[in-house]
Amino acid sequence: MSTHRPDSFLFNTLAIVGVGLLGGSLGLACRERGIAKRVIGVGRDLSRLAKAVSAGIIDEAFVDLKPAASQADLAVVCTPVDQVADAVGEVSRFAPEHALITDVGSTKGTIDLAVRAKRLPPGRFIGSHPIAGSEKVGFEHAVSHLFDWKVCIICPDEKTPPERVEFLTNFWNSVGSRVIPLAPSDHDNVVALTSHLPHVAAAALACLLPQELVPFVGTGFRDTTRVASGNPDLWVSILMNNRPATAVALASLQQMLSKYQVALSHGNAEALAGLLTAGKTSRDRLS
Amino acid sequence: MSTHRPDSFLFNTLAIVGVGLLGGSLGLACRERGIAKRVIGVGRDLSRLAKAVSAGIIDEAFVDLKPAASQADLAVVCTPVDQVADAVGEVSRFAPEHALITDVGSTKGTIDLAVRAKRLPPGRFIGSHPIAGSEKVGFEHAVSHLFDWKVCIICPDEKTPPERVEFLTNFWNSVGSRVIPLAPSDHDNVVALTSHLPHVAAAALACLLPQELVPFVGTGFRDTTRVASGNPDLWVSILMNNRPATAVALASLQQMLSKYQVALSHGNAEALAGLLTAGKTSRDRLS
Repeated sequence: MSTHRPDSFLFNTLAIVGVGLLGGSLGLACRERGIAKRVIGVGRDLSRLAKAVSAGIIDEAFVDLKPAASQADLAVVCTPVDQVADAVGEVSRFAPEHALITDVGSTKGTIDLAVRAKRLPPGRFIGSHPIAGSEKVGFEHAVSHLFDWKVCIICPDEKTPPERVEFLTNFWNSVGSRVIPLAPSDHDNVVALTSHLPHVAAAALACLLPQELVPFVGTGFRDTTRVASGNPDLWVSILMNNRPATAVALASLQQMLSKYQVALSHGNAEALAGLLTAGKTSRDRLS
Repeated sequence: MSTHRPDSFLFNTLAIVGVGLLGGSLGLACRERGIAKRVIGVGRDLSRLAKAVSAGIIDEAFVDLKPAASQADLAVVCTPVDQVADAVGEVSRFAPEHALITDVGSTKGTIDLAVRAKRLPPGRFIGSHPIAGSEKVGFEHAVSHLFDWKVCIICPDEKTPPERVEFLTNFWNSVGSRVIPLAPSDHDNVVALTSHLPHVAAAALACLLPQELVPFVGTGFRDTTRVASGNPDLWVSILMNNRPATAVALASLQQMLSKYQVALSHGNAEALAGLLTAGKTSRDRLS
């Protein structure tokens, strides 16, 4: 994983639209590593953005998209997924011809469709999804190493010029990530299983715990349900944007749980052993 | 949480039957804090036990139960749950009249029934379940602070002399734990929800991940499935010992997941928001 050496900038101006956990971490990483000469942040609340400037996360703050976008060499839209396509369209109206626009959204299919409908020039937008983040929100939790050793999925299409794919790949490499290109629908199937399903399972489990049992909770329950503390609004957007794939993944989980239910009701230790061993084998691959 | 001060021993000899992660951690805690004058370990494999002696986990190793049990003031059975009742019976045959026997098993109902059938003197055995541990096995992972700030459920019955409950409570307090007494069936209902259900959910989720998706896995999936790496044999014992309560808890999870499935298939953002918010509210209580 080669991160950028700060003896030369990859480009001049990075515009971050939406300075939260991901946008803030991207700002920190790019400033610390000298990836962009200047990092500007766009948001709705100037007083919050001023704090992000004070914290060294961005160099300059904007509440108007136009002046920010017009300076950008690379614009990264870090809004909730249901606002990404419109923000991409707006940035594209004002950004210089050479500028590339990407995002960090956790879904790709609906964003791809909505951006296509805007008929931007080929290669103007390439979707990204860095698999990094946490249940926390806000730039106060931003860390410059958030993207180190992580995978970033990007979604170029058949019309994307190769040099634009290379530029975006270099950018994600420079903040420490490994890039894997996928079609938007493949991306959505993958993350339905690796991210959206675990979120649903964690939230469902967490919800079953009555308050009086809190003292009896150990690290197992805590870990298994940690992501359920994520912002519900963000997750409604994500799940609504990836409904079919998440529904398929959820049906698979329900089928698997039914196998446990049958094994338990029949007292079938052999079946339980088979199920648990398959789970362990699969989980141990991640260690 | 008052831990024991090493200027006086609580009792002379602690016998640990089964020197694994929990037994080993108990040995370390009792030796480091001077809770027992001597900690002896019983196991099947003398060469492994010799390593536990070298590692400072126990003072002396035994493969025969009789000489170990006959010296014990407190014996803690740390075997897999399906072997606890028989081990308790054997220890009781050889232990001095004043000795107390307990265990660390994750289920309590079937152990209670099986031990009752052995007709030991009242208060000879009081079941314990320290809510501590991890997916790791073996005394190599033992740590002396494993029980610090944890809850330990104990299951005295109506015939247990109060001074024996007090002795056991003092013991668990001395290794850093807070004691909560529960009836065995209440214990089993509680842990079905807080521990056995999350294990099943984690193993089921882990199992759904095809190997080719491993690179796309983030911290969310990792945390949600961590416990699935636990030893399947131990978990078959646990689930088989707590079948009815786990089956009820699993049915609740399946019902909750069905609500998500309905909300997803109808594209009902409001219902999803309600479900996710309830999950977050519940999970946030643990922070």
